[in-house]
Amino acid sequence: MTLVNDTGFTTDTRPINPLISGDKVDGTAVYNGAGERLGDVHDVMIDKVSGRVVYAIMSFGGFLGIGEKYHPLPWNALKYDVELGGYVVNLTREQLEGGPVYDELDEPLWGDRDYEKRVHDYYGLPPYWMV
Amino acid sequence: MTLVNDTGFTTDTRPINPLISGDKVDGTAVYNGAGERLGDVHDVMIDKVSGRVVYAIMSFGGFLGIGEKYHPLPWNALKYDVELGGYVVNLTREQLEGGPVYDELDEPLWGDRDYEKRVHDYYGLPPYWMV
Repeated sequence: MTLVNDTGFTTDTRPINPLISGDKVDGTAVYNGAGERLGDVHDVMIDKVSGRVVYAIMSFGGFLGIGEKYHPLPWNALKYDVELGGYVVNLTREQLEGGPVYDELDEPLWGDRDYEKRVHDYYGLPPYWMV
Repeated sequence: MTLVNDTGFTTDTRPINPLISGDKVDGTAVYNGAGERLGDVHDVMIDKVSGRVVYAIMSFGGFLGIGEKYHPLPWNALKYDVELGGYVVNLTREQLEGGPVYDELDEPLWGDRDYEKRVHDYYGLPPYWMV
């Protein structure tokens, strides 16, 4: 018998639902280190060749998507927390708000390594194509 | 100046658009080794913790999604081909049709390792959690 705790996860470190579809990743919660919800994952960017998720696109604010701002976070900035059932970032809201951001009218040119390097530099992480 | 050939890719081995969003992966073509289109990627299954795509869910047949069958393929069975702008699998249509399949009414219980092991066994690949 597998014990399930209040958060809906087994008592081991593996989520009950370890997989999520690309269609449904939207809405996964993102927390800060204090367990406060900062926002949600809006989408992910996948490297077509390697099949690695390289960015979580985080959103906060907006209403039904109107006026929503999208914050690309290098995947390595996120850590999945089984207890919380979401991702934890070691960042403040102010750090996120001051970081690279776009809205649906000015989506970045993904693959532009100057842009992508700036995103990684902001979060102090090496670009995914360097590691 | 970057030369772009007829297939819309640069002449190096990197796709012009190396990233794809989880929302938009649906529709990427899947070919056999002879370059014949077998079907399309319908969705991907992502490991929440590692951020690795572990399955491509392939579809073929059906009309506007009605009667469509979904074939989970271990990610390592696919290789991205820059020239084709899609994935190549070293499989015949008959092998795909004889493999694990579901429709929208009986989606597998992802994370059930007995089921997932059977999928990998069918394609002769070690389960992603073993590699």
